Order: sequence, then C-alpha cells, then structure tokens
Amino acid sequence: MATGRNHRPATRSRGIPEATVARLPLYLRALTALSERSVPTVSSEELAAAAGVNSAKLRKDFSYLGSYGTRGVGYDVEYLVYQISRELGLTQDWPVVIVGIGNLGAALANYGGFASRGFRVAALIDADPAMAGKPVAGIPVQHTDELEKIISDNGVSIGVISTPAGAAQQVCERLIAAGVTSILNFAPTVLSVPDGVDVRKVDLSIELQILAFHEQRKAGEEAEAAGRKGPDGDMPAVMPA
Amino acid sequence: MATGRNHRPATRSRGIPEATVARLPLYLRALTALSERSVPTVSSEELAAAAGVNSAKLRKDFSYLGSYGTRGVGYDVEYLVYQISRELGLTQDWPVVIVGIGNLGAALANYGGFASRGFRVAALIDADPAMAGKPVAGIPVQHTDELEKIISDNGVSIGVISTPAGAAQQVCERLIAAGVTSILNFAPTVLSVPDGVDVRKVDLSIELQILAFHEQRKAGEEAEAAGRKGPDGDMPAVMPA
Repeated sequence: MATGRNHRPATRSRGIPEATVARLPLYLRALTALSERSVPTVSSEELAAAAGVNSAKLRKDFSYLGSYGTRGVGYDVEYLVYQISRELGLTQDWPVVIVGIGNLGAALANYGGFASRGFRVAALIDADPAMAGKPVAGIPVQHTDELEKIISDNGVSIGVISTPAGAAQQVCERLIAAGVTSILNFAPTVLSVPDGVDVRKVDLSIELQILAFHEQRKAGEEAEAAGRKGPDGDMPAVMPA
Repeated sequence: MATGRNHRPATRSRGIPEATVARLPLYLRALTALSERSVPTVSSEELAAAAGVNSAKLRKDFSYLGSYGTRGVGYDVEYLVYQISRELGLTQDWPVVIVGIGNLGAALANYGGFASRGFRVAALIDADPAMAGKPVAGIPVQHTDELEKIISDNGVSIGVISTPAGAAQQVCERLIAAGVTSILNFAPTVLSVPDGVDVRKVDLSIELQILAFHEQRKAGEEAEAAGRKGPDGDMPAVMPA
C-alpha cells in the first residue's frame, strides 16, 4: 500500500535487495499466523502461497538470510520468525511518535499491529491546544510545541505523520531537525527530506486499485461468457456467467 | 503495505502478471505527480526512480500494456496515466461501502485519495444504533441492518471492512451474500472467503517494518564507523560517525 524511498540506491542495502526487504514483512505475517496455530515447520511452497509470492523467489529471498530449510521438512517456523524479525530490526524496541491526532492518527494510536512488531507509541502530538492532555489509546496527547523535547527525551528515530497535507512538510522538517531519520507519511502530499532520511508514503487507495483491476477482469469474463451465446454477439445476453 | 489474494492463480491474470498489477498503482501515483506539474514526457529511468522500481522492470511492465515509449523522448505522461487507469479499471465509477465507522472508518471516509482514483464512498455502515444518521465526511452513517439493501441499491461490488477483528468475518459474509466480490480488509484478522471473491488485507505496520530495517542498518553503519578507531574495537568510540 505504499512505497518510495529517498536518496539511497534502490536495489541493495547491506547485501539484501530492496525488493527482498519489502517482502520480509509479508513472510513474517504469514509465519506469525502459522506460529499462532503452533505449526512447527512449513514448506517453501506453503509459505510462498500464504505470503502471495512464488516459491522460487521465496527460496532466493531466504538465501540472503542464510536460511535454507531442510529437504523434506521445510523451514522451522519459530526460527524463521526470529531470523526475519532480527533482520528487520524488530527484535529491538522502536519508540515512535505520531503527529496529527485526527481520526487517522487516533486509529494508528489504537492499532494493535504496531506493538506486536516492536513499535511502541512513545507519544502523540497535535497542533490543537484543545487536544493537549486528552488521552487517546490511553496516551495523553501533547502539543506540537513539545515536539523537539519529546523526540529527544524518548530517543525517537521514527516519526509517523498523519496531519493534513498542508502541515506535513513543516512537521517533517521539525522531526528531522530534532533527530528523526525515518518517516512514515500518511499525509496526502510528497515530502522533501535531506539525504540520509528515509520516507515511506502510505497510499490507502493502492490496494483498492488492485481490487478494481480484478473486479474489472471479473466483469469482463462475465461479459465474455454472456457473449458466447452465438455468433452474433451484439445482443445483450441474459444467461448467467 | 498489504497483500494476499485468495483462490486465484498468483502469477497471471488477463495476461498481466500479478506483480505487474501490484506495481501499476505505484507508476500511476508517480505519473499523477508529474501530470500535476504539467510535465509532458518522462524517461523510463526517471519514472522508475520516482516509482521506486528498476527501469528494466518498468519497461517490461509497460510492454504488457502495449506501451513502449519513444526513443529519446520517453513516455507521454497523460497517455500513460490514461492507459494505466484504464487497465486498473479506474476509468469507471466504483461505488464502495465502508463498514465500521470508528476512527479508522471515519479516516477512510474522509480520505481524498479514494475519490481521485474513481472510488466513490456510496455508504457508511456501523453496528452502533447511536451512530445511525450521524454524518461522517458529509455522509450519514446507516445501521448494519440496512447492509444488504445498501449493497443492492447501489450496485456495490467492493466493500471496505474497518470493524474490530471480532466482527469482521460476519460482516464479510454478509457483504458477500449481498453481492460484494472484492473486500479490502483493515480489521486485524484473516478473513475466509469463497472462490471468486478477492480479499486484500491492509497491514499498517508493514511500511514501519521496512523503515526499521533501514534504521537498524543506519545504526549498524554508525557503530561500524565508530569502531574504526583502532585495532582494539571493544572500547566505546566517541568520534562522530
């Protein structure tokens, strides 16, 4: 649902291709589901299907981790969860701040999927003085005036921006000046950042676009099936597809 | 930030590989930004960099669309926007319903990125009777009792689920029974759907995981640079990395 990195070679990073890095969270999600069902081992084919990737690509990706599985047994689920988590840096604690506590910021503050991946919401920040002190997801909102102090006090290196588009660039600059080096941008705007800062932009419509592609294709198949009623295909067909 | 399709060959669909389909929205986003700046043409290298894809892959992807660009000139931005939009099915109107109008559902209802891609929020649905009739993003919330009628009256084929995890499967089944064939799932749970229904699950933590990978690597580089102070590397280094 999002992408776009800045100022860094797009293909490799610490020996692991960027495309492999982007698939690691998908493997991790599939493996976590297996782990929750106490499944001890998984074949590359099963895991590839669960992650929506082809199995040759999965095996190649795992070779970068030094993980090759055992012939006839497959991969050890728990060990692979650990390996991928470690590779992604999820075995350490990442304090994050969320700036912009509207509906989206509040939804993100409440989102259970962060904490389970090593991301701890250290602070919520909003420009509206009326929000200050109000608890959201159990965390009192702090005013934007405190932004620099919050970043510094909590050793925050990852900031989440969920402000309106017009406020995002300025918030981004303040976060970076205060020491943040990775930004997850939910604001519907493109952010400019200096070298050495990573930005990923989340576009909530991307998955809908992929669904639309398949909907259109399904509709096309129905129309085609309906058209199979005879050589003269210009009459609207009524038979079910 | 999300993936996972159900019950369909993972590699091809109407002749276009699934991985290409998944990249089309990224190209479209980059092209739309160029179009807004009135840029008439773009080289495959420039566009690839803007979309975060390598240029050979981009040219291969575009060959599936029958789009080859002009040597020395590049691709016509407006025409490519049209081609990709048409391929993705975005040149038609897609009414969608959002079920579960908490913070996330409200944020989605307000999200500008849907309308600009051909997705029209036809209705907002929530199980809380106290929400019924309240406007969110200018649209009055309707009660879950009306779900089947709303789907049918509006010819909705795409449903967005932003309910709590516990309610999602039941909502999913009602949407499908009422005629929905594509589901965008924001609820933190895996949905079971019958053949012929596409589900994509949005995991808001995936992009954060990719940022964590890069943060960890940056920290590693700093430690390594700091460690270059001498052959005996076990003393904490103080020189700037």
